[in-house]
Amino acid sequence: MVSAECFALRGDIVQSADVQTLACVEDGYAVCEKGRSLGVFPQLPGHLEQVEVRDFRGHLVIPGLVDLHTHAPQFACRGMGMDLELLDWLDAYTFPEEARYLDLDYAARAYRSFADEMVKGATTRALVFATVHLPATLLLMDLLEQSGLVTMVGKVNMDRNAPDALREPSAQASLDATQEWLASVRERAYSRTFPILTPRFVPSCSDGLLAGLSALQRESALPVQSHLSENRSEVAWVRRLRPDAAGYAEAYLNSGLLGGPCCPTVMAHCVHSDPREASLLLERGVWVAHCPVSNTCLSSGVAPVRAFLDKGLRIGLGTDVAGGYSPSILHAVAEAVKASKLRWRLEDEALAPLTLAEAFCLATRGGGSFFGRAGAFDEGFDFDAVVLRDDPPPCGEKIGLEARLERLVYTGADSLAVDKYVAGRRIPLPQAAADAS
Amino acid sequence: MVSAECFALRGDIVQSADVQTLACVEDGYAVCEKGRSLGVFPQLPGHLEQVEVRDFRGHLVIPGLVDLHTHAPQFACRGMGMDLELLDWLDAYTFPEEARYLDLDYAARAYRSFADEMVKGATTRALVFATVHLPATLLLMDLLEQSGLVTMVGKVNMDRNAPDALREPSAQASLDATQEWLASVRERAYSRTFPILTPRFVPSCSDGLLAGLSALQRESALPVQSHLSENRSEVAWVRRLRPDAAGYAEAYLNSGLLGGPCCPTVMAHCVHSDPREASLLLERGVWVAHCPVSNTCLSSGVAPVRAFLDKGLRIGLGTDVAGGYSPSILHAVAEAVKASKLRWRLEDEALAPLTLAEAFCLATRGGGSFFGRAGAFDEGFDFDAVVLRDDPPPCGEKIGLEARLERLVYTGADSLAVDKYVAGRRIPLPQAAADAS
Repeated sequence: MVSAECFALRGDIVQSADVQTLACVEDGYAVCEKGRSLGVFPQLPGHLEQVEVRDFRGHLVIPGLVDLHTHAPQFACRGMGMDLELLDWLDAYTFPEEARYLDLDYAARAYRSFADEMVKGATTRALVFATVHLPATLLLMDLLEQSGLVTMVGKVNMDRNAPDALREPSAQASLDATQEWLASVRERAYSRTFPILTPRFVPSCSDGLLAGLSALQRESALPVQSHLSENRSEVAWVRRLRPDAAGYAEAYLNSGLLGGPCCPTVMAHCVHSDPREASLLLERGVWVAHCPVSNTCLSSGVAPVRAFLDKGLRIGLGTDVAGGYSPSILHAVAEAVKASKLRWRLEDEALAPLTLAEAFCLATRGGGSFFGRAGAFDEGFDFDAVVLRDDPPPCGEKIGLEARLERLVYTGADSLAVDKYVAGRRIPLPQAAADAS
Repeated sequence: MVSAECFALRGDIVQSADVQTLACVEDGYAVCEKGRSLGVFPQLPGHLEQVEVRDFRGHLVIPGLVDLHTHAPQFACRGMGMDLELLDWLDAYTFPEEARYLDLDYAARAYRSFADEMVKGATTRALVFATVHLPATLLLMDLLEQSGLVTMVGKVNMDRNAPDALREPSAQASLDATQEWLASVRERAYSRTFPILTPRFVPSCSDGLLAGLSALQRESALPVQSHLSENRSEVAWVRRLRPDAAGYAEAYLNSGLLGGPCCPTVMAHCVHSDPREASLLLERGVWVAHCPVSNTCLSSGVAPVRAFLDKGLRIGLGTDVAGGYSPSILHAVAEAVKASKLRWRLEDEALAPLTLAEAFCLATRGGGSFFGRAGAFDEGFDFDAVVLRDDPPPCGEKIGLEARLERLVYTGADSLAVDKYVAGRRIPLPQAAADAS
């Protein structure tokens, strides 16, 4: 008997086999049962012949993409102040914008546009920074819960080096607000929206605040997200702020917030992480959120992703809206390849550029692993899938699935998403869905 | 009396005052008479009060953008083979694709999609490479003439180092075909589509072919477009091919095809042009077509645009489809800024990144100057204008015109073009036009 909660997407299926290799099945079936993947089949096996088939022949079916680092309250001001570097840009654009989220009416409008955008594209899971504001953060979580995406959202902690409107009055006040936020989240009993501890970065968090968050992390077992070694002046600043630490990562480590078996942690950027810091991240099992667009736009540089991969680090991609101007992870795939080429050509020819297959793996399996079993159609994985409309090129010649994926990554981006599933649940897309099949 | 051929666009007007500075007029009027600009006015002066006003209040009005380097026959295969460098990519993707243009049916379909795309976006003028094929090149010129854009199109010359299907049998055969093409162009008496001599690049053209083209240039006074110092292995190859020349630019110079008062010339790329080569380009009055997307995607590097600007070189932007995957010059503006940031951070901190204002100037006045008086709303300039829909950010706060332009460049690109004029003639846009006003 085939379960009523079982269906198959028929189409040209592309996913990552491993970090170097794409696994492609032309005119195949990606099968979902009760929200989980049963795998990809060239033909439906006998016991599945009766499942409902949703027909996307000629189009690409890929695993849902994972955005491992984004700031929802910066979505409204993306593409602005791009002639500045990180610390000046935070002061001139980001902090004033985040201060608006005290106003719930504003938050409702701006977060609605963020949530709508997340639904439209190819992203199915995301790690999201909110602001320090408790009510606005809950509102964002309500909207993301409704969106159908699986997200982890953090009320931001910051008790120093921030404008008055954003600086929490003390470490204790920041911790109390965090406890209150977590209590409200528990009451709401979201099914797909989870809290994540979110100290903004070392410059914004006193030693006492980080220590308190570490204690909270130990008792709650919540995951952690923050920023690491993004921009040169930030790195230099952290060295001055934390003379106790041998480096930026050690500042988190000394404060008990750098991974380990019971503290799943994502650190965004790691542009300036040297081999010593990278080894520490590996040892602590920390995920790196590579954010190529933001790191280019804020003149931070390009993270040595090739070296991280060689070392065996866990890496995903982040859009880092609004250091990055685009909420699209497909765009981030192209940009990761592009940035790695310039790093190779201009900075270090020892580190070969990323291939499209590698960048795509970061966007799927790489980030997906932070959510458990996600980012691929392996049996038992959460069934996250996106159908990308793929109109053949005018030559009419059959081109391979890898080339078709590359072509869509560079030319089409998220506007081509015509159907989308998160953990087996169909996410209604505005307009597009009707056009394709 | 106000001429019937006079109208004004009312909106928020942004253009380049000079290479560093944007000139912005909020709720102003850009006035056109008989295809030429009368200038920008905060209020309509008395003698113009009766002109027809096309109302785009709240939206941005900018000069039409100029694409100083693109390959029409590569449009169909954009976004493919991006894991290769230039010479391998030409062999694996570009040459096989260009060989298809022997087939006029294929050319008709593929060039139609290119021309349609050019109409949709914010580009109003372009320099276009076709292929070696005469009939297909004429067909492309017919389509571009119908499009309303002003273009210069080149039948490509190549008599060596190309696959049989693309290699013209001899220098003389290539020159004869070029003469035949020019005769056909004269017969067609296009009003806005002009021929440009197009030796592909030194590796594709024998010394005899270049010498013949130089003679043809002298008698016809036609402009010239080609490629220069794009990729390291190409530069090394040219050194081997042309031992007579002190460098790549000198190969063109020795062949009589490098600018000068009677030979307006655009050289695409110039990524590896050292100060000596740049001085030669300056001396010969050559325009540089800076193609940041292509130079990143083919791992060529980043041209030292800041050094070129400091020297006083003429520079515009090119999309270089399909080394570049995007036909949008607005996209190239953002990418020029991004590439310059990585060049600054990774290669040479002596050359400051480009600002948005500078990159925008390259895209308008910079490329426009190759067409004469184009790329701005100065009095007497050809009236090329694009209206970009600009919806205010959710904060509702008024932001300046420079910031609004930046925001659209990064987030909106060409999909926001809702009205478009070339030399005063309205170009009907598919769909969008109706939505804005």
